[in-house]
Amino acid sequence: MIIQKEITLKSRKRGFHIITNEILNEFPELNQINVGLINIFIQHTSASLTLNENVSPDVRSDMEAHFNKMVPENAPYYEHTLEGSDDMPAHIKSSLLGPSLTIPIKDGRLNLGTWQGVYLCEHRDFGGSRRVVVTINGE
Amino acid sequence: MIIQKEITLKSRKRGFHIITNEILNEFPELNQINVGLINIFIQHTSASLTLNENVSPDVRSDMEAHFNKMVPENAPYYEHTLEGSDDMPAHIKSSLLGPSLTIPIKDGRLNLGTWQGVYLCEHRDFGGSRRVVVTINGE
Amino acid sequence: MIIQKEITLKSRKRGFHIITNEILNEFPELNQINVGLINIFIQHTSASLTLNENVSPDVRSDMEAHFNKMVPENAPYYEHTLEGSDDMPAHIKSSLLGPSLTIPIKDGRLNLGTWQGVYLCEHRDFGGSRRVVVTINGE
Repeated sequence: MIIQKEITLKSRKRGFHIITNEILNEFPELNQINVGLINIFIQHTSASLTLNENVSPDVRSDMEAHFNKMVPENAPYYEHTLEGSDDMPAHIKSSLLGPSLTIPIKDGRLNLGTWQGVYLCEHRDFGGSRRVVVTINGE
Repeated sequence: MIIQKEITLKSRKRGFHIITNEILNEFPELNQINVGLINIFIQHTSASLTLNENVSPDVRSDMEAHFNKMVPENAPYYEHTLEGSDDMPAHIKSSLLGPSLTIPIKDGRLNLGTWQGVYLCEHRDFGGSRRVVVTINGE
Repeated sequence: MIIQKEITLKSRKRGFHIITNEILNEFPELNQINVGLINIFIQHTSASLTLNENVSPDVRSDMEAHFNKMVPENAPYYEHTLEGSDDMPAHIKSSLLGPSLTIPIKDGRLNLGTWQGVYLCEHRDFGGSRRVVVTINGE
C-alpha cells in the first residue's frame, strides 16, 4: 500500500520547529500500517527537514545560532544576493540538512527513538507556509 | 513495481551541477508510475547528491565557494593526504551533503517543488564519470 | 516483501566507525532480495549514520577532527549545556550527517560502490550502545 499526501504547513518564523504532530494529524491511515516506511519531503530550497531532540527549546535555538555562524549572511564571496541577505545562506543550510526524512513505521506508529522529533528548519526570515509531500509505503 | 538501473553520468568539473534531466532521460518508465518514490544513490565517497535551486548559476558557484571555506584543503589536522589536497575535503563534503535522495513520484513525474533540481556535487578536481543507482518503487 | 528489525549496536567510543558487517550479519534474508532498498535508521539524536571510505582509518579520524572544529564544544552561544560540553555539538553533528541511509539492493547484496562502507558516527564521549531500525523493501 502506497499513500501520498501533500500538506501545507503553517507559516513559521526563522528557526527550528517541531512539526511531528502537525504531520501525523493528517495521517489517520498510519495506524493501519503494521510495517513500512514514511518519507517526508519538503518542496523548497530554503527550508529543510531534520530529526532532533524533541523536548528542550534551547536545542532548537542553539541549532539556529550555530547554523547562522557556520553559514553566515553577507559572506564576501556570495554572488547570489538579489533576494536578500538571508537567501543564499538558506540555500546552503537546506542542502546541509536535507530535503527529506525516511522513518520506519511499526505497529501503526513512527518507530522513532524516545527523544526524536521531526523539525521544520525555516531558513528564511519570511518563508511563508511550506509544502511537504508525505509518502507512506507499507503493509 | 520496483525498477532499478545503474547510470553513468558524464564527467564534470569540480563544483555543483544540475543533472535532473540526465537522470530522467534514462527513465521513460516513470510516466507509468501513478504514485511512489524514486531513490537516487551515488556509488562514491568523494561526490554527493543534493536538491537545490534550479535556475541561478550563482547559487551553484556560491555553494562551491562556501563548501570550500567550510571544509578547506590542507587543514593542519588532516592525515589522509596521499591522494591530493582535494581528497579529504571531498570525503567530508560527501558526508555533509549525503549519498542519496529520495523524491516522491506523482502522476508519472517527480513531485518536486518549482525551483528544485537534482545536483551532482563533484568534490574532486578530476573525479571522472560517476555512477548512480536509481531505484523506483511505485504503482 | 517488507522486513523490519531492530538491532542494538555494540558500544563504541566517540568517533567514526564502520558497521557494515555488524548490520549485514543480522540479515541473512538479504540474499533472497533480487532488487529493492534498505533503510537504516538510528533512533538517537546524538549519533548519526553516513557512508564513506571503507579502508583508511585516517579518513575516519580526519572526519572526527574536522567535525570537532566545525562544531566546537563550549561555543559561547550554546545554552543547552546541562548534559555536558559534548552534548549540544552531538545534536548539531547528528543533523548535519543525518539519522538514516537508504541504499539500493541488487542480487542479494547492498549495491554499494567499491569504497563505500556504513559509518556509525558516535558524537558523545560515552554514548553507550545505539539502536538502529533496519527496513528492507524488495522482491
